[in-house]
Amino acid sequence: MSQSEIDTLIQLLSRLPGFGPRSARRATLHLISRRETLLTPLAAAMQAAADTVKVCEECGNLDVTEPCAICRDAEREATMLCVVEDVSDLWALERSAAFRGRYHVLGGTLSALDGIGPDELNIESLIRRVTEGRVSEVILALNATVDGQTTAHYLSDRLSEFDVQVTKLAHGVPVGGELDYLDDGTLSAALKSRRSIS
Amino acid sequence: MSQSEIDTLIQLLSRLPGFGPRSARRATLHLISRRETLLTPLAAAMQAAADTVKVCEECGNLDVTEPCAICRDAEREATMLCVVEDVSDLWALERSAAFRGRYHVLGGTLSALDGIGPDELNIESLIRRVTEGRVSEVILALNATVDGQTTAHYLSDRLSEFDVQVTKLAHGVPVGGELDYLDDGTLSAALKSRRSIS
Repeated sequence: MSQSEIDTLIQLLSRLPGFGPRSARRATLHLISRRETLLTPLAAAMQAAADTVKVCEECGNLDVTEPCAICRDAEREATMLCVVEDVSDLWALERSAAFRGRYHVLGGTLSALDGIGPDELNIESLIRRVTEGRVSEVILALNATVDGQTTAHYLSDRLSEFDVQVTKLAHGVPVGGELDYLDDGTLSAALKSRRSIS
Repeated sequence: MSQSEIDTLIQLLSRLPGFGPRSARRATLHLISRRETLLTPLAAAMQAAADTVKVCEECGNLDVTEPCAICRDAEREATMLCVVEDVSDLWALERSAAFRGRYHVLGGTLSALDGIGPDELNIESLIRRVTEGRVSEVILALNATVDGQTTAHYLSDRLSEFDVQVTKLAHGVPVGGELDYLDDGTLSAALKSRRSIS
């Protein structure tokens, strides 16, 4: 088949999350019809990312420098450590601009089903940072899923022997959310954590 | 911002059809975590496609050769010309393996709303192929949309002065389709074109 370059592109694109054969074909035509403005720049950006992006050995963040920009930033609190599952969660917290400390990316959650134990996650490096560094608070910003909360319990157990405060994110009504659309668990958590209007 | 390589990749990926900022971030992390198996091959495939894929001057198909594999294939009927809107429609017909003639890609449909007239489409080259070649039948395989059918009417008008049979795809119940889920237009078209069971 002489169309191999096109077929290869379709086949690789169909492995992107959310893409299937049909959307990969559509994206391929979209790219080829925008050769100068999208296809060539995207090929170059992918190659640049493949060549330059590193995993920060300190926190597990992705960046083109090592250590990453957040770990190098002397302005950021070294006493607060925010533990997240993945880099996407770190990005979400950075977009909110609500946190000015450092991060620690676990690289997933404990999962008996998927056979992921403590050794598969960046937990030893977290313990090392807590023991060696000036960390006074560890915020467990894990997802409110079963695996996320299991991991949070495990970590707070492990961290209890050190002189460090362990906190987790508040549960409650999302800002802009409507009560009618919330699940029972969130509603009862929001009610239990109700606060006095000062 | 030192994350520019990552941000550039996210920004370019978000311009793919069906992608937004969120799915582009997800795809970026997916790609970076599969650097050797997906990111580097995909960058290379995109560069290869950008360098080698050409538009066939004869029919408008995309291929790495010029003329394209279909136009070069002497086994395919040169007397039958199937007119499609886009390369994606040509691919769909090729997947069905039901047509063994040649194609002609219009590059879109007539659209008063988008200001697309006959000069914006590959119509003159179609007329040239019909007058110069050995074409005996032109199949208008255009989408069953308003614009597609307007274009089909325009083309059958233009082609009426030549000694060539002009046909269009049959309307009817999709194979495997349920009557209950079909729109009224399709049902009445299927009823009107009913055939005797031989």
